[in-house]
Amino acid sequence: DNYGSQSFEEDEYAKVIEGIKRIYKQKIKPVEVTYNFEGFHSAPLTDSDIEAKPIVLLIGQYSTGKTTFIRYLLDKSYPGEHIGVEPTTDRFVSVMHGSEERVIPGNAAAVNQDLPFRGLNRFGQAFLSRFQVSQTNSPVLENMTIIDTPGILAGDKQLTERGYDFTQVIEWFAERADLILLMFDSHKLDISNEFKLAIHSLKGQEEKVRVVLNKSDMVSQQQLMRVYGAMMWSLGKVVQTPETMRVYLSSFWTEKPPNCFEDCRELIEAESKDLLRDLKELRRNAAIRKINEIVKRARLARVHALIISHLKKEMPAMFGKKKKQDALLNNLGAEFIKIQQRYHLPAGDFPNPERFKQNLAHYDMDKFKSLKDDLIERVDEALSNDLPKLMSQFPTMNPE
Amino acid sequence: DNYGSQSFEEDEYAKVIEGIKRIYKQKIKPVEVTYNFEGFHSAPLTDSDIEAKPIVLLIGQYSTGKTTFIRYLLDKSYPGEHIGVEPTTDRFVSVMHGSEERVIPGNAAAVNQDLPFRGLNRFGQAFLSRFQVSQTNSPVLENMTIIDTPGILAGDKQLTERGYDFTQVIEWFAERADLILLMFDSHKLDISNEFKLAIHSLKGQEEKVRVVLNKSDMVSQQQLMRVYGAMMWSLGKVVQTPETMRVYLSSFWTEKPPNCFEDCRELIEAESKDLLRDLKELRRNAAIRKINEIVKRARLARVHALIISHLKKEMPAMFGKKKKQDALLNNLGAEFIKIQQRYHLPAGDFPNPERFKQNLAHYDMDKFKSLKDDLIERVDEALSNDLPKLMSQFPTMNPE
Ligand SMILES: Nc1ncnc2c1ncn2[C@@H]1O[C@H](COP(=O)(O)OP(=O)(O)OP(=O)(O)O)[C@@H](O)[C@H]1O
Ligand SMILES: Nc1ncnc2c1ncn2[C@@H]1O[C@H](COP(=O)(O)OP(=O)(O)OP(=O)(O)O)[C@@H](O)[C@H]1O
Ligand SMILES: [Mg+2]
Ligand SMILES: [Mg+2]
Repeated sequence: DNYGSQSFEEDEYAKVIEGIKRIYKQKIKPVEVTYNFEGFHSAPLTDSDIEAKPIVLLIGQYSTGKTTFIRYLLDKSYPGEHIGVEPTTDRFVSVMHGSEERVIPGNAAAVNQDLPFRGLNRFGQAFLSRFQVSQTNSPVLENMTIIDTPGILAGDKQLTERGYDFTQVIEWFAERADLILLMFDSHKLDISNEFKLAIHSLKGQEEKVRVVLNKSDMVSQQQLMRVYGAMMWSLGKVVQTPETMRVYLSSFWTEKPPNCFEDCRELIEAESKDLLRDLKELRRNAAIRKINEIVKRARLARVHALIISHLKKEMPAMFGKKKKQDALLNNLGAEFIKIQQRYHLPAGDFPNPERFKQNLAHYDMDKFKSLKDDLIERVDEALSNDLPKLMSQFPTMNPE
Repeated sequence: DNYGSQSFEEDEYAKVIEGIKRIYKQKIKPVEVTYNFEGFHSAPLTDSDIEAKPIVLLIGQYSTGKTTFIRYLLDKSYPGEHIGVEPTTDRFVSVMHGSEERVIPGNAAAVNQDLPFRGLNRFGQAFLSRFQVSQTNSPVLENMTIIDTPGILAGDKQLTERGYDFTQVIEWFAERADLILLMFDSHKLDISNEFKLAIHSLKGQEEKVRVVLNKSDMVSQQQLMRVYGAMMWSLGKVVQTPETMRVYLSSFWTEKPPNCFEDCRELIEAESKDLLRDLKELRRNAAIRKINEIVKRARLARVHALIISHLKKEMPAMFGKKKKQDALLNNLGAEFIKIQQRYHLPAGDFPNPERFKQNLAHYDMDKFKSLKDDLIERVDEALSNDLPKLMSQFPTMNPE
């Protein structure tokens, strides 16, 4: 076992996730539900939203060793795995933990409430028939979900041949991923137009992207330098950020190829170790990120509750409700300022009045709930005690 | 002696240069002089134009080891050489062969007919006081002239502080160079704005540019990979060509620094050897390029002679000279077609009629010389016999 054997402090992570779920359900969700947060922001989080494992997305030209890398990590094949010299992986595969081996076809996966793939329905049948969830029992997958993807070919006609928009699908997964591994092959470096498009579609996600120059032992040291340089040269042109992306020189195989070079073995091993360490950090970083997102969400929900209850309070008890509602709607900015002053809230925490007004239009303000101090107090407690306490379990890291 | 000790087939090169000089003087120059080629193209070549050694231009941030590299090549200091941690080289230095040590100040160098630096006068006093020729006796310099340059600093205010336009001077040398070495320091990678401008000014000369990542043994192997990657990433953004530039990982020193790393020694030595080999090829390539340029020039001069003598022939013997000259001037295109048909010449070998007309305006066509068959035959001989024979001494290479 190449990876799972290392201690993962599994309990600690599980405890943090349990903590987030408990705090959210007891102290944040009630205020969301009471003040129609869903209509203005998003539906309350489910347990599976919070439990969702960090996602690692693998992208690359065909035959760069993406599927082999997953086999290396798991130390076994996932159900439906194919490895070979021709373009082999012909679909997107979400490799996930499960107590037993199972393949869930794309259509079934995209309607499953317990899986984070409902959003994939937008890509239609052509895509869903090229998507599957592969479950297998693996300690590695207790900590992350890995997305294997079809290799990108050199030609340009793939978009039409595929029947779905590869780049948009990549973009969808990239937004939800915690780490994106761009895999290159030292032995056969080539950046096709579709691969360039895929890289472009990672715009805004650059800090999650790592580059893996795989099969680094299939070329001599001097060749490796050339290939590495050429790759960075091309990548620098495609990626717009001035900061260099982190590159790992690696060669992941389960059986050592007979014809590999040994002159960079030490370097490749050091680099591979770095990559595996970063994968281990993933869960920890994902936990920190989750706490951070819950904090953001709690602050939003709190301000939202104060706005909604304020509007409710302004409504007359008996007559002129319609007129008053209109007046409030048209002076939302002024009402926001009143609320900021009363509760000493920064203007930056408030929503855009225009957008808020559009959402308000669907509601009858008179039906809004009045301020319930205990609900607000619960959120305050979460923000000032519970969530910071969870965060303090990660002493050396900063959120964001 | 690190470089000069290797056999250079000096005789062969000298013979080729002598051959070009002889062929040019006997068979091409006469037709140029007879038919006023100078007024339409350029002055006849002098011996020193043809003898001019290949030029190697060294560019880089300060303290990257440019001057140390020259000391390594020559195995000695050039007159006026400074090496040190602070920005040390404060001027452009043309390091050239000479029987004894001598420094020629910029002003003197720029008026010297035997030196290829008359064009530098355009940069004025501020520049000429920061330019010098340093002559020293060295077998390496029998084969090339090396231009050492002041290191580029990180700040942006240098342009005004220097008093001359550094970028334009670099451009001037780059156009005339046979090889441009962009030197980086693995230990302190940094690409300032002025350096970026300098790199931009190499536009169009990209095929002459090589990148030297120097002091490669001042960092560990893993650090070296990072630095190298970061450099290629940035260079890819600055240089517009899709082809990667050739990089040499090197560390040139005359005394081994005590604190250097050994884990890439073999790679660095292989790469340094490649660079030295390419420097040796320089003279051979320069010779091929010179033959090629002479061929081009001879073809141009031949067509020119046929045009001029044709115009002369069209002029009336006695009266109406002015009128006829005007008519010819206004129908130059038609006259060119007549000449093409008579001598079976491709239209592509003919000058732009508008530009030609402007130059013609300074001449009295009646004073032009008539066609002298023996002059044309001499050019034909050079083109079909003498120059191909010279070229055949380089059997494996293609011109251009
Ligand atoms: N580190 C390695 N060294 C040498 N060969 C390797 C390495 N990794 C994978 N290979 C070989 O490369 C080929 C392609 O591997 P694999 O199927 O894992 O690539 P892939 O990126 O998943 O391809 P596709 O995009 O077609 O699914 C296989 O023959 C595999 O054995
Ligand atoms: N290969 C090397 N390894 C370690 N140190 C080096 C190496 N080459 C040069 N140095 C040191 O770096 C410093 C700068 O060297 P040098 O003066 O040759 O650089 P330069 O590029 O010519 O600088 P400038 O642009 O200021 O003229 C000196 O102290 C020199 O000894
Ligand atoms: Mg695959
Ligand atoms: Mg110097």
